[in-house]
Amino acid sequence: MKTDLILKENERIDDLQIRGLKIIQNPDLFCFGIDAVLLSYYARAAKGDKVMDLCCGNGAIPILMSAKTGAKSFTGLEIQEESADLARRSVELNGLDDRISIVQGDLKDAIDMFGGSSFDVLTVNPPYMTEHHGLVNPHEAKAIARHELLCSLEDVIAASSGLLKPQGLFFMVHRPHRLVDVFVLMRHYGIEPKRIRMVHPYADKEPNMVLIEGARGGRPNLVTDPPLVVYKDKNVYTDEIYSIYSNA
Amino acid sequence: MKTDLILKENERIDDLQIRGLKIIQNPDLFCFGIDAVLLSYYARAAKGDKVMDLCCGNGAIPILMSAKTGAKSFTGLEIQEESADLARRSVELNGLDDRISIVQGDLKDAIDMFGGSSFDVLTVNPPYMTEHHGLVNPHEAKAIARHELLCSLEDVIAASSGLLKPQGLFFMVHRPHRLVDVFVLMRHYGIEPKRIRMVHPYADKEPNMVLIEGARGGRPNLVTDPPLVVYKDKNVYTDEIYSIYSNA
Repeated sequence: MKTDLILKENERIDDLQIRGLKIIQNPDLFCFGIDAVLLSYYARAAKGDKVMDLCCGNGAIPILMSAKTGAKSFTGLEIQEESADLARRSVELNGLDDRISIVQGDLKDAIDMFGGSSFDVLTVNPPYMTEHHGLVNPHEAKAIARHELLCSLEDVIAASSGLLKPQGLFFMVHRPHRLVDVFVLMRHYGIEPKRIRMVHPYADKEPNMVLIEGARGGRPNLVTDPPLVVYKDKNVYTDEIYSIYSNA
Repeated sequence: MKTDLILKENERIDDLQIRGLKIIQNPDLFCFGIDAVLLSYYARAAKGDKVMDLCCGNGAIPILMSAKTGAKSFTGLEIQEESADLARRSVELNGLDDRISIVQGDLKDAIDMFGGSSFDVLTVNPPYMTEHHGLVNPHEAKAIARHELLCSLEDVIAASSGLLKPQGLFFMVHRPHRLVDVFVLMRHYGIEPKRIRMVHPYADKEPNMVLIEGARGGRPNLVTDPPLVVYKDKNVYTDEIYSIYSNA
């Protein structure tokens, strides 16, 4: 790997800690987190599926999903050219150009760009914060990744609904405090929430993430999985988290 | 207590296992369960509050809530006269006639009966099953308590919204598989879900109940509490459940 050729200033190559996969990150931009790892673990795709990842950032989710599934193709859509460029080079670094394509663009144009009802599976780790909720990061690139500045939750779910085939599967990670918004918008746009799993930092603490599975046109009936707990002790992951990092 | 005077055929007096409270039950009708105990534990009412309990059955919730809160008055509304009659006699048996009144009637008429925006707090342990979901109990009285035969979830939430004062608090126990319906209907009728707590039979099993708090006209922001686990071992309650039964 000619890593000296593809790294730009401030960039570094991080180990995804899963199957030897690498990712190029720039600390000035949004770096992938446990959210992306857990969503990749949670999401499913069948052999031959076409998968879309919205708000793909530096491409962590399609890269991880390509390793664990037999899906035919992954498309990562990212509005920020700097992040899309990182993602493209990470795909190349891992030799995944044949299965993953990264596209720079606005998800509000995604149906025009890719056609309606054209994906079997859609994953998304969207900005969590409403425009005015929480401090807006002074680094604009990070603010766009974290806050609903360029797309709202409604834009994400509307685009997902348009892109998914009937019965296509939707997987999202979000914050539990937005769960009512998530459910109301999913049902409004015809993606029925089918399954949730709360992610708690410790077993006796409030969850700080929620994994959500939906099906376009699915029948109402929500399954709630037992909690996913991250730490069993200070700085000690639970067995499940260790197993996610070793087998994802 | 002249219990021989107030018991009818097939009825028995059960100990609520909390503060010496008793309840009259008839195994041919729906008997209160842990759902009612947990909802009474979860719900709050301030001193002087007017509290409504919809679908009150044999009155377990207002009886338990009267012991743990300083609320001024409780009204229990129940559509089945046999259950309302049991509830009235349980209230009398506990000497609570001055604070709890039981009314037989249909919650779809509740706003006409009690006036709009007239309660500070509303509790409800409604039928969990949609009309055609699951086996309908051949004993009609139990079927009415368990299935949405005489009222739908939408009827319950619409009535609650009409009965609650602005910012009034709403507390419901339901099944997790209906959580999407619950959130969508609550928001539609202006009762914002503010807090949920999943109840799991065991820490590593799916939840089988969910406790929900809402506020009429509240601001969107959901808090998810850590799970409430019922058993730590076969037939052994967790400390929290023991403490609920000893202090509720």
